[in-house]
Amino acid sequence: MTGPDLHDDLRSVAFLLGTWRGSGHGDYPTIEGFTYDEEISFTHAGKPFLFYLQRTWAPDGSPLHSETGYVRPVGADAAELVIAQPTGITEIHAGPVEGTTLRLRSVDVGLAPTAVDVRSTARTITVSGGELVYRLEMAAVGQPLQFHLEAKLHRI
Amino acid sequence: MTGPDLHDDLRSVAFLLGTWRGSGHGDYPTIEGFTYDEEISFTHAGKPFLFYLQRTWAPDGSPLHSETGYVRPVGADAAELVIAQPTGITEIHAGPVEGTTLRLRSVDVGLAPTAVDVRSTARTITVSGGELVYRLEMAAVGQPLQFHLEAKLHRI
Repeated sequence: MTGPDLHDDLRSVAFLLGTWRGSGHGDYPTIEGFTYDEEISFTHAGKPFLFYLQRTWAPDGSPLHSETGYVRPVGADAAELVIAQPTGITEIHAGPVEGTTLRLRSVDVGLAPTAVDVRSTARTITVSGGELVYRLEMAAVGQPLQFHLEAKLHRI
Repeated sequence: MTGPDLHDDLRSVAFLLGTWRGSGHGDYPTIEGFTYDEEISFTHAGKPFLFYLQRTWAPDGSPLHSETGYVRPVGADAAELVIAQPTGITEIHAGPVEGTTLRLRSVDVGLAPTAVDVRSTARTITVSGGELVYRLEMAAVGQPLQFHLEAKLHRI
């Protein structure tokens, strides 16, 4: 299958492209620790952004979280990430691209009237040797910014 | 193809489900009027929300806008819509579901550091006889809330 050529502006984040599968674990002071399976895809349509789609499942196969959005390169060494979540939360992130590592901090979190109180998140995504590892920290429900999720995925 | 059963909470917004294709026109005081082709899909995975994906193309086939997110029913007669856009903008909407019409006003607009200044939008989506019509008003770049987009699509 052939698609449109990669937009020049996407060179700095092209390392994310593809479909990734793996598993992760989560924890937070207000919940029980848990494990999950995950699939992430980053695709492009010839425009200067990546389309991002993520889904996770419990070990028994039932769907857990999902989120979707876009990665926007800013110059050659920074990026923004805009995300919508079915929990009624939007996140806008910005941060540097350091080689094949994306270091993001939320600059805006939007909450639907019925959403839980998330204040900020920080996400680090690293790709190395066909493996994508991310770590997500979160400040929510009165808790300070701290570890929430970590996962390791392989490009399929 | 069989999928998971529809979640009970989705009954009020089930009229949106499917893939829709059609065309629309846009205008704003700061730009030239334009026309576009569009495809929208609303899907579900057995959870109490719809996944929303939208793309538009210029008459010559080149990609224009896109956005993605989720529809969250709130009780039997209201809904929230959370959206991410590759322009670096997130929107959170809330409003009533009146039969097969969804009347949404933005309650939050998030802007990435490099995004243009959108203040608010209002979206009305109506489904009738296999046809989906929406109208979008927008307050942006110093202009008051006013007509921006209107489109008519058919379920395929």
